[in-house]
Amino acid sequence: MEFDLIDRIRRHTEVNRDDVVKGIGDDAAVVAVPAGRELAIAVDTLVEGIHFPVGTAATDIGWKALAVNLSDLAAMGATPAWALLALTTPDADAAFFDGLASGFAELATPYRLALIGGDTTRGPLTVTVAVHGFTAPGEALLRSGARVGDVVMVTGTLGDAAAGLRCLAEADVSPYAALIERLNRPTPRVSAGQALRGLATACIDVSDGLVADLGHICAASGVGVDVEAAMLPRSSALLTHFTDADALDFALGGGDDYELCFTVPADLAGEAGATLARLGCGATRIGRVVEGAGVRVLDERGQVYEPTRAGWNHFAA
Amino acid sequence: MEFDLIDRIRRHTEVNRDDVVKGIGDDAAVVAVPAGRELAIAVDTLVEGIHFPVGTAATDIGWKALAVNLSDLAAMGATPAWALLALTTPDADAAFFDGLASGFAELATPYRLALIGGDTTRGPLTVTVAVHGFTAPGEALLRSGARVGDVVMVTGTLGDAAAGLRCLAEADVSPYAALIERLNRPTPRVSAGQALRGLATACIDVSDGLVADLGHICAASGVGVDVEAAMLPRSSALLTHFTDADALDFALGGGDDYELCFTVPADLAGEAGATLARLGCGATRIGRVVEGAGVRVLDERGQVYEPTRAGWNHFAA
Repeated sequence: MEFDLIDRIRRHTEVNRDDVVKGIGDDAAVVAVPAGRELAIAVDTLVEGIHFPVGTAATDIGWKALAVNLSDLAAMGATPAWALLALTTPDADAAFFDGLASGFAELATPYRLALIGGDTTRGPLTVTVAVHGFTAPGEALLRSGARVGDVVMVTGTLGDAAAGLRCLAEADVSPYAALIERLNRPTPRVSAGQALRGLATACIDVSDGLVADLGHICAASGVGVDVEAAMLPRSSALLTHFTDADALDFALGGGDDYELCFTVPADLAGEAGATLARLGCGATRIGRVVEGAGVRVLDERGQVYEPTRAGWNHFAA
Repeated sequence: MEFDLIDRIRRHTEVNRDDVVKGIGDDAAVVAVPAGRELAIAVDTLVEGIHFPVGTAATDIGWKALAVNLSDLAAMGATPAWALLALTTPDADAAFFDGLASGFAELATPYRLALIGGDTTRGPLTVTVAVHGFTAPGEALLRSGARVGDVVMVTGTLGDAAAGLRCLAEADVSPYAALIERLNRPTPRVSAGQALRGLATACIDVSDGLVADLGHICAASGVGVDVEAAMLPRSSALLTHFTDADALDFALGGGDDYELCFTVPADLAGEAGATLARLGCGATRIGRVVEGAGVRVLDERGQVYEPTRAGWNHFAA
């Protein structure tokens, strides 16, 4: 018999949804997409030692594996519906499985996200989640809609997760709890993404680092972006523990923030900011869409600033 | 920048489908399910050294990663539409990526299956595929519909893949090419599954071994099954190279066959057999659904036969 992790998680995440015709327990799940809705689908893998440090709590692994995927749906403005989980793990440790299940469920439940299928295999620890969400035709937030003159904005604060990763090397990590929490328990900006439908012209989630991810918007939209370094939102936790220069580099190049970076017509930027403020995450203007290609970071004197990290490359890391 | 494997595979598998609104290249894919169709979704992971031997050709890995997932759709009677691929690999070797892409594409193309998204990460070699297919409401083949008196049938032949795995230990593998081909290049019975809609009462694909997988039908349907050992379809390649007893154990307990095992009302068994014969895979009657629970294997004298392997347990292996 296959180990019953998927059943364990299902018990933790029991959600009744009318659109799930057949959930866990057959060769495939069967679902029904509501009339008038398109489906957004994303998949992301977390590998131990690459995407989370060896020794990360099972609950945090379960949370984060879902969070990074919900963040992809958030960047499309989609409403989460269903997920499948493929877990590869070196041994069948019930406590680990229960921890992973409870962390996954803790994030899934408020979204009424149903776990509809999965697979468990033996091998080095990796967790792959595939998520499905709904969008209305033509309403998905793509990377390709940025226009010259648009304002560039970002939710929340940047750089905390990368700083948290750095802090794990300290003998006493307790002063850095807020930063490490951002690393282990990222908050996908799901409601923010939904609120940006009809406002944002382009959107991406910051997973590899702001400069790298904004570069994807530039490439897809055929534009350039000027970012004002002084405008980047940084948390008090980050600024308390790191120099301004380090905090800036974390904000520009650190991965794993899972904030939304988006472009919005200048006359709608105020509305976007007010809307996201009401949702609790806020949003900050950090730059402008310009003619050209690629991301330029400008210091307070308008000079080009060269970040020391240009995003997070899993194959170069 | 993330390595461009997904782009490489997309180039190999370029398929234009009207139902793909946004394919590879954004935070999530966006697709439209045709009116009147439900969606079957499955996910399966292959781990090097567990699901394929170390040293397996990249093309075979690409093929098999998709095949085992298409087999799940086949077991539901679903029509393949889209896939996502999450690859974890220790290094960015272009030749390996091209091989994997071409093997994946070779199987995907005849089904007009579109690769709509993916993720590449660094770590121990594992390949996870999520597939999506269409079914009409109420037509999906579940495990739960077997009824006492139904005939149990299976497509193709059983035991070849497990025998092929055994043969890999030989100094000269050339005599066993047919068996090894079945291990590395399983044929998902997609058209067979579709043809069984409206005929089969329950269906499963044989991935863990016949006894184990038939056991899932028994559990889901609340019935027992009697299998006649002498009726099990075995290939001439298997019978040439192995004793009758070994061939029987491979057929009963060997995993990785990816044939369809299904139940069908006795008065429709002839029609099912004829239909599958026209599709080229054929189907063999191997037993009966009975009252009770679980699978009994009967020898030619009607005595209970105890197979030496009871299916393939990845965590016990």
